[in-house]
Amino acid sequence: MTPDQFRQYGHQLIDWIADYRARVADRPVMAQTSPGEMRRGLPASPPDQPEPFDAVLRDLDQVVMPGLSHWQHPSFFGYFPCNGELSSVLGDFASTGLGVLGLAWQSSPALTEVEEVATDWLRQMLGLGGAWSGVIQDTASTSTLVALLCARERTTEYSLSRGGFQEQTRPLVVYVSAHSHSSVEKAALLAGFGRDHVRQVAHDADWAMRPDALEAALAADVERGCIPCAVVATTGTTTTTAIDPVEPIAAIAARHRVWVHVDAAMAGSAMVLPECRWMWRGIDGADSIVVNPHKWLGAAFDCSVYYVRDPDHLVRVMSTNPSYLRTAADAIVKNFRDWGLPLGRRFRALKLWFLIREQGVSGLQARLRRDLANAQWLAAEISRTPGWRLLNRVTLQTLCVRHEPAGLEGEALDRHTLSWVDRINRSGAAYLTPAMLDGRWMARISIGAIPTEREHVESLWRTLQEITR
Amino acid sequence: MTPDQFRQYGHQLIDWIADYRARVADRPVMAQTSPGEMRRGLPASPPDQPEPFDAVLRDLDQVVMPGLSHWQHPSFFGYFPCNGELSSVLGDFASTGLGVLGLAWQSSPALTEVEEVATDWLRQMLGLGGAWSGVIQDTASTSTLVALLCARERTTEYSLSRGGFQEQTRPLVVYVSAHSHSSVEKAALLAGFGRDHVRQVAHDADWAMRPDALEAALAADVERGCIPCAVVATTGTTTTTAIDPVEPIAAIAARHRVWVHVDAAMAGSAMVLPECRWMWRGIDGADSIVVNPHKWLGAAFDCSVYYVRDPDHLVRVMSTNPSYLRTAADAIVKNFRDWGLPLGRRFRALKLWFLIREQGVSGLQARLRRDLANAQWLAAEISRTPGWRLLNRVTLQTLCVRHEPAGLEGEALDRHTLSWVDRINRSGAAYLTPAMLDGRWMARISIGAIPTEREHVESLWRTLQEITR
Repeated sequence: MTPDQFRQYGHQLIDWIADYRARVADRPVMAQTSPGEMRRGLPASPPDQPEPFDAVLRDLDQVVMPGLSHWQHPSFFGYFPCNGELSSVLGDFASTGLGVLGLAWQSSPALTEVEEVATDWLRQMLGLGGAWSGVIQDTASTSTLVALLCARERTTEYSLSRGGFQEQTRPLVVYVSAHSHSSVEKAALLAGFGRDHVRQVAHDADWAMRPDALEAALAADVERGCIPCAVVATTGTTTTTAIDPVEPIAAIAARHRVWVHVDAAMAGSAMVLPECRWMWRGIDGADSIVVNPHKWLGAAFDCSVYYVRDPDHLVRVMSTNPSYLRTAADAIVKNFRDWGLPLGRRFRALKLWFLIREQGVSGLQARLRRDLANAQWLAAEISRTPGWRLLNRVTLQTLCVRHEPAGLEGEALDRHTLSWVDRINRSGAAYLTPAMLDGRWMARISIGAIPTEREHVESLWRTLQEITR
Repeated sequence: MTPDQFRQYGHQLIDWIADYRARVADRPVMAQTSPGEMRRGLPASPPDQPEPFDAVLRDLDQVVMPGLSHWQHPSFFGYFPCNGELSSVLGDFASTGLGVLGLAWQSSPALTEVEEVATDWLRQMLGLGGAWSGVIQDTASTSTLVALLCARERTTEYSLSRGGFQEQTRPLVVYVSAHSHSSVEKAALLAGFGRDHVRQVAHDADWAMRPDALEAALAADVERGCIPCAVVATTGTTTTTAIDPVEPIAAIAARHRVWVHVDAAMAGSAMVLPECRWMWRGIDGADSIVVNPHKWLGAAFDCSVYYVRDPDHLVRVMSTNPSYLRTAADAIVKNFRDWGLPLGRRFRALKLWFLIREQGVSGLQARLRRDLANAQWLAAEISRTPGWRLLNRVTLQTLCVRHEPAGLEGEALDRHTLSWVDRINRSGAAYLTPAMLDGRWMARISIGAIPTEREHVESLWRTLQEITR
């Protein structure tokens, strides 16, 4: 495609995206297609000859659109807000259009230096001290895997440079809670710890990790000859946005030389609000943190920021230095390839930099406060309505709710919950994610899509009441 | 940013990118900035109030542009071609603009199903059999890490579900060559094998892995009580594009139940040419393959396709199944989150799908054949010119060259090589990557940027001769 054709079709696509975002509220939130329907509608083999690009663009409407669940919809209350603020979208477009690659500082200095600046801006916005250094990863899954690999290598004194994890004769243990995100256990298993050495520390009535239980678990493991290696504390768990208390957890971990990783993937965005920072009090006692600006904050996916206090250790675990990647500048610059898994890196910093500049810190704060207020409003409505139960303390933007008609309990109640959530999702009026809490299904309502205003939350509440009537 | 503002600034940005691509040849290929220069020019703190977006866009020219090395430049001969074909760029724009996320099939069915279709189209284009299933990862570093984790878990019969890698009493060994990419050793170390258990198998005079040496290394390890686990064969190594012979390697591996991963990250694109497929003859005997369409083929970075013959095994290693990710469709659909590391996934398939459709298979083949012919032309010129030496057999698009003035050898020759490559890079006329081969520096010339025509290769050859005169 020539630059002139790109100009022509690019303008068409910009209008298409603008129209999509402007009118997304008119669409059913969840895709109405059935499995395999789309795939069966597409040619089984690639075209030998070029197709007219008009036909390709047309398929965005005819083929792709019916198969989308709309995360940017004002009535998207599923999973978590994965906001692609339009200024950030343009930052990502610039990155893709430039097509430069960060293999080394020299391979595009701006890619590295804007990333240093943007992650340091975010550090300040989150209220983190100057000892933290940031790097952009793709997702929290990856950031947490990197954290546990770094923990493993600190405890084993760089066994990777010798006989590897197999040379360990005493088991290394990772501590999580039953409410840690699934990616935490996945990371522990992939890093080689084994499920037998992932301890689920008991939680309190608000599903937050209990420091006394952590202390007891550590002591029991030491007693039986295991080596405590890492603890993952979550600021805002996935199911209920529970707040694991970082300060006492870090204090206990310090006594055992245990790595503390804080998973603030979703709730980390809220730390741009000074009034929320109690949620990770003691954060400077952690070794690593993951915050995903691609969630509530609004950076276009993917943009997960991983902060460490000891970048030299990170580099020692992750670095490779083949001759074809060496440059004269290496000694005095950051080569972010040595701060994570992939060698090749996009210019992801642009989308974070654009977002912060176009919104301003105050703009981002105002939007997040709007969402917190909307969550409080809905929490109050649900709490005072007979037949409805709010299950969690709403500190952030996620509500855990159940409709509990008289006489329904146990599995019958589960069936009722899954049934009405499914009816809402299929109706297209809103999208919620069901999840299990203490062995029973409930509905998560995650507020915070950029276009979600009070009216949409009010409308959701009316829908909830109508559909369960 | 409102959709209307997005429309306005989006059009500006499209024109800016079109202009950039149309005129990139006028810029020096390598950035001329010094370390820290850019960073020091930016505000140390984030803006509290929103900035006008005009100012943000203006900084693309004033701040970012001087700090870029231009990978899409016709005289970019560094590292490898990382082509962002403009049709593929538009596919990526559509993905970012839609802002949908693939956590599960249901969370956007089109994201999964277009990925199934596009990776299957690519499978056919590469001449792979129907038993291979593909998934898009970010980079080959990640794909290879996934491969070695799967190898580890096959050999240990899913130790991750029990005591982990630590429970292994006999060391597991990974076999590579000295010319395997640095990401292979990195993956082996992160997967926990340890540097002591990464064997560098001897290579032949063309830097290709010697099957007899692999056989001997395996036998020696079995003898000493180790368990051979995985071998990584490279189709087109980074330094010289050497071709490890997959067929005999796979045959030997099969006898030892060793996982075979084929790293065809760069050269895999050439497999769309039937005349190149001898390079990975025997590929159907491998367990996994990585091919990066974001390299020579032209998909906008990042788009690395990982093929496996046993997706059930992959899913068993990678899957997690928390309640908040379960949907009614799970039993009958692919959930690609269980095919790799990250849970969250972009709609990456669009950029591959757009590329194949807009170019057609024949269009992609024609461009790659152009590049192969350009490489042959330059190889012939260099071979017949006194004072120059071509070091590798040019089967693909990478040349390894040295200018060898009479009387210069050893370290003096190294200094000469690094000096003239540096002068070329600093001149802005072209960009090359120096690398070591058999202990001495040489210059790699990697041909295959989309705008690189014969005239640019001719111009490079004139520059090489002038700068060393």
